[in-house]
Amino acid sequence: MSAPFRIAIAGLGTVGAGTLALLARNADLLRERCGRPLAVTAVSARARGRDRGVPLDGMAWYDDAVEMAREADAEVVVELIGGSDGVARAVIEAALEGRRHVVTANKALLALHGTELAQKAERAGVALSYEASVAGGIPIIKALREGLAANRIERVYGILNGTCNYILTDMRRHEREFAAALADAQRLGYAEADPGIDVDGVDAAHKLAILASLAFGTRVDFGGVYREGIRHVSPLDIAYAEELKYRIKLIGSARLTQHGLEQRVHPCMVSLETPLAHVEGVLNAVVAKGDFVETTEYEGRGAGAGPTASAVVADLMDIAIGRRTPTFGVPASELKAAPRAPMERHTGAYYIRLMVVDRPGVIADVAAALRDQAVSMEAMIQRARAPDEPVPVVLTTHETEEARMTRALSEIARLDTVREPPRMIRIEPL
Amino acid sequence: MSAPFRIAIAGLGTVGAGTLALLARNADLLRERCGRPLAVTAVSARARGRDRGVPLDGMAWYDDAVEMAREADAEVVVELIGGSDGVARAVIEAALEGRRHVVTANKALLALHGTELAQKAERAGVALSYEASVAGGIPIIKALREGLAANRIERVYGILNGTCNYILTDMRRHEREFAAALADAQRLGYAEADPGIDVDGVDAAHKLAILASLAFGTRVDFGGVYREGIRHVSPLDIAYAEELKYRIKLIGSARLTQHGLEQRVHPCMVSLETPLAHVEGVLNAVVAKGDFVETTEYEGRGAGAGPTASAVVADLMDIAIGRRTPTFGVPASELKAAPRAPMERHTGAYYIRLMVVDRPGVIADVAAALRDQAVSMEAMIQRARAPDEPVPVVLTTHETEEARMTRALSEIARLDTVREPPRMIRIEPL
Repeated sequence: MSAPFRIAIAGLGTVGAGTLALLARNADLLRERCGRPLAVTAVSARARGRDRGVPLDGMAWYDDAVEMAREADAEVVVELIGGSDGVARAVIEAALEGRRHVVTANKALLALHGTELAQKAERAGVALSYEASVAGGIPIIKALREGLAANRIERVYGILNGTCNYILTDMRRHEREFAAALADAQRLGYAEADPGIDVDGVDAAHKLAILASLAFGTRVDFGGVYREGIRHVSPLDIAYAEELKYRIKLIGSARLTQHGLEQRVHPCMVSLETPLAHVEGVLNAVVAKGDFVETTEYEGRGAGAGPTASAVVADLMDIAIGRRTPTFGVPASELKAAPRAPMERHTGAYYIRLMVVDRPGVIADVAAALRDQAVSMEAMIQRARAPDEPVPVVLTTHETEEARMTRALSEIARLDTVREPPRMIRIEPL
Repeated sequence: MSAPFRIAIAGLGTVGAGTLALLARNADLLRERCGRPLAVTAVSARARGRDRGVPLDGMAWYDDAVEMAREADAEVVVELIGGSDGVARAVIEAALEGRRHVVTANKALLALHGTELAQKAERAGVALSYEASVAGGIPIIKALREGLAANRIERVYGILNGTCNYILTDMRRHEREFAAALADAQRLGYAEADPGIDVDGVDAAHKLAILASLAFGTRVDFGGVYREGIRHVSPLDIAYAEELKYRIKLIGSARLTQHGLEQRVHPCMVSLETPLAHVEGVLNAVVAKGDFVETTEYEGRGAGAGPTASAVVADLMDIAIGRRTPTFGVPASELKAAPRAPMERHTGAYYIRLMVVDRPGVIADVAAALRDQAVSMEAMIQRARAPDEPVPVVLTTHETEEARMTRALSEIARLDTVREPPRMIRIEPL
């Protein structure tokens, strides 16, 4: 039996404790599969005394995680502190400077500093692994980086945030408003007290930026992600979606277009015929389309102690065994700086909901605004009748350019029969 | 730039030609990702003159694939001939004896001789890779062997045969009989002239045996797979399934039970609530449940030149880069010989369809036969009325043991009001 693979863990919150639990409970299995034991030699967290449900015997304790990253008797440092800067970043940089491998679950940090950290890891000749940063336990990083590596990836997209998916599922099933579903998600621990990172699409955008870099060999460009969250999705839109045979999902999507790299996160209407429509609750799903493999899809829990620990330890096993791959699939120096495809140039179909006063001529005015932008209507539903009161009118369009749609909508918003800002949700042919 | 990675390919049918096409078309990408070019130095096939749509310039031609495996200037031999014995096996053995790595898409061969070949590969110190053997381009071997390696796998199951899934989808969508759907699949090239390997579940059983070995660290045991095909599935059962909110799928499922390793391939009723129910047409899907990662699912095309070539080349890239893993996740000598869980001990819920003469007392007789075996009924549908003519009666049961169900069915078959052999389809809580 070879010498143990020595691990230092920074951060003992839910994921850190889950990782320790996995390493303890499945120790025999890991030793058999790696050909050597995995041993945690050092840990660091804020509160030393707290009971985390896992024994810390035989592990050196550090109050200062950066000090641990610099000095611990470990070949790899696992960063589970979180945050796009501050201590997490300092820990990773200290580890890389000391030529220690790094495993992290930190999507924010990679989305903002991924290219630069990958360069540092390469110069140090060590691994920077981050399977846990996207879609929890689903091995999507490995799939893109190794399993599909023979393909030119055409598009990668998916349901990247379990909190939003839970809220949208809950709103549909219980026909309730966003605020009520959010409160429920908070009560169950699926959403933070400050939910903005999740419900405004920031977290999904972090993950999308990482996936896009891997898929297309481009520099990580979080700033280039177009982003809309789910706060404005209403139960009314969800009900209309079902009637039109769609389901509303927060989708992150990246592809290379003639205008450059298109990265966008926003609510989408997804056909009920597609498996993605049936990925419900806290589940995540990622779809990758390659030129030879065609469409492949990956589903599972996107968060939680168990799934995240599964991904962290898979990374540790790769390093322990010596399976190595450049951070983003190719040497960091070869990652390309892709131009950003402007959202105005995006083309697609659209769902529009208006609240209009039910008067003759309203639809004619709306139709004229669309016609003036050469947007062609596919379907129209105006079911409710309530003279002189606002009723919903729903339209779907054929494929058009986003800029045209935006101009038509601002025309429509100006009509005095239109009583609320128009709601627009993009229809995705997934 | 390092020296090229030298590849010999045995078999230039659809998959062989697809592999050559991928290696040519994505050569720059592969070179960038591997840090060295991938070069095909030798090929072998039966008909030298045939036009395969890909140039063979600069590749040594061998009429004898075994000779090529022994003598070619190559570090790896790709076996794409197929068949569980004969030339394919001889090619692989010759390659391993010459300490050449092997990549194969041959599920039949691995299902029957996998453990022994893995031992030979290990003794030779080379890789035996087979991503293409299960679920085409979906990187499920890599997911189980590396991505989920931190987990104790509890169960692995899925839709493993695209031909059967196409036929079942077609039968449902067009309300037609098995024979008509099969003829259609044959016309489209989704089924062979001799369809038995697919429709009798043999191909799915090959793949299941491979997945089970990987998932549970057990010796590959194709002989231990319980197997039923889809020939007896009727449009009537498909329609009843929909009414009961199920869809009929050919499922391969493996798990470790208290009675041993349970491996089975048979038609199942799958809830419409589960994503697997919506995997249609020629698509494959595999679900793996681990103790930490929980449920993960993988979908994509399970066959065809492109997806299979994607998997073959992914294996080549792993070898070229030096990413190595034991064939079935642990050293072949440590694979356990698991006892076979007998199918009679399987427990689950059942769907039963009877064709009975519509006479008072029929249901009472059927109910008595179930009661005598302590099988409890969950629901019963007898919609058609046609005095003295056979009409369908459909029952579903609560969970019971297979042996009890079998005894109750043979009792029921003996009733003189029951005019056809009872149809039984297992209901799977997936």
